[in-house]
Amino acid sequence: MIERLAVIGVGLIGGSVALALRETGSVKTVVGCGRSKENLVQAKRLGIVDHYTHDVAEAVDGADMVLLAVPLGAMRETLSGMRDHLQSNAVVTDAGSVKGSVIEDLREVFGEVPGWFVPGHPIAGTERSGADAAFASLYQNRRVILTPTSETDPKAISRVELMWRQCGADITRMPVAHHDEILAATSHLPHMLAFSLVDSLARLKENDEIFRYAAGGFRDFTRIASSNPVMWRDICLANQDHLSAMLTRFADELHELAAILEQGDSEGLLEIFERAKRARDRYIDGVE
Amino acid sequence: MIERLAVIGVGLIGGSVALALRETGSVKTVVGCGRSKENLVQAKRLGIVDHYTHDVAEAVDGADMVLLAVPLGAMRETLSGMRDHLQSNAVVTDAGSVKGSVIEDLREVFGEVPGWFVPGHPIAGTERSGADAAFASLYQNRRVILTPTSETDPKAISRVELMWRQCGADITRMPVAHHDEILAATSHLPHMLAFSLVDSLARLKENDEIFRYAAGGFRDFTRIASSNPVMWRDICLANQDHLSAMLTRFADELHELAAILEQGDSEGLLEIFERAKRARDRYIDGVE
Repeated sequence: MIERLAVIGVGLIGGSVALALRETGSVKTVVGCGRSKENLVQAKRLGIVDHYTHDVAEAVDGADMVLLAVPLGAMRETLSGMRDHLQSNAVVTDAGSVKGSVIEDLREVFGEVPGWFVPGHPIAGTERSGADAAFASLYQNRRVILTPTSETDPKAISRVELMWRQCGADITRMPVAHHDEILAATSHLPHMLAFSLVDSLARLKENDEIFRYAAGGFRDFTRIASSNPVMWRDICLANQDHLSAMLTRFADELHELAAILEQGDSEGLLEIFERAKRARDRYIDGVE
Repeated sequence: MIERLAVIGVGLIGGSVALALRETGSVKTVVGCGRSKENLVQAKRLGIVDHYTHDVAEAVDGADMVLLAVPLGAMRETLSGMRDHLQSNAVVTDAGSVKGSVIEDLREVFGEVPGWFVPGHPIAGTERSGADAAFASLYQNRRVILTPTSETDPKAISRVELMWRQCGADITRMPVAHHDEILAATSHLPHMLAFSLVDSLARLKENDEIFRYAAGGFRDFTRIASSNPVMWRDICLANQDHLSAMLTRFADELHELAAILEQGDSEGLLEIFERAKRARDRYIDGVE
């Protein structure tokens, strides 16, 4: 049982953890912390938090579990803010979409990766944000990746794993760099493509007309371009190396595809499309 | 009232037209035509067609309305097949996603764009295909673009417009090239990107693991990569010029984006993401 959970950043991710733990009776008290008073008031009204504060030092005071669910760009400042206020038995974890940058932030603030910090990333979310978007079943049967380092205390890992299991999630462990490479492919690159395509079309002079004739497939394809721009700016910068390599490689492949198309290479096109359909039907629909 | 409708290609598109016209009592008899016996038997079982045949000449015999809902690559052969068998009051329309190539096919087969042919394109569909996928409400409040030429008979246009209105659709007219340019942007390019991304990831050596960590956003983003590969190969080749120009331009933009990312240009990234989110929220969600 978590006695006192501090959720720093009470949005879709942090709010849903609190709701899931409450539903399974796995937490006694939840303290919310964030910048927007309106969002915190709403979080209390929705029963996500019992108390709230704008001060991270106050939020972690007395907490045995701390969840950092802030944008990656706010991670370092948040860590600094809690630095001298954690109680001795506290375990801290985060939900950032890039893990290498969090490790860097930890080294910067604490001079090491503290044993009580368990880097984590729930593979779940929607394009919505804020406390209003939170719901208890968000993590049900979803994967949570933990990327502990050799310095991480095994007992801290166990406590964080238990928390995510109580939220209904399946837990996997992997190395930091491996996580960041996989997520660059399955999440960060698709977001870059969706943002970039919508922006590109919006800048065409007939953009009004173009969007008017967009059908269902386009809506699904570009749904992720409605995600929070600040959060995604932070993610892309935090995973800069893996992501820019992947982006460059994909841009090269599109140039090749354009060449295949210009040559009217019917076999070449069909081969790509068939391989893609097979892969998607097999891997993606299998887990839906 | 349509006396006898010939649907050449009884899949999602053609089958849904038949079902919608039946539901509004706008057609007496529907004849289906296609290559797969299994699909035609299923179409009859589902009440989509009254009769079926594999022979396009037989299918159009006695029909006052003919809908060509075959892949673009089969359009020319289909037109040749019906050439000497249409009755004098017949109107023919199609549902191809590219209109320039259909116009070329018509000139090739008939030496001109016949007055009784009304080129059309319903902006509707799902990633599913076949008679099984058809449903009567597919075109409800969807747009249908007609691209008649100066040679098209106004009476033929009216009859086709009436048919689509009876399916619940809104009708717009626009020039052939303009249609093909707009659709390259909103439909053909996104499909190319989705096919290409999934194929690219499937060819990575850790592809099993990559797809395992794909979350909801990725599933939506890549849904269109489960579309019919042959149909899309045909569409891409038919709209080759517009599409390859757009693909090259977008690949260039991705290279620029990679550069922005490598420079750590936080403002530049945020600007793109914010513009994209604004455009999507405004244009896309407004029509959902």
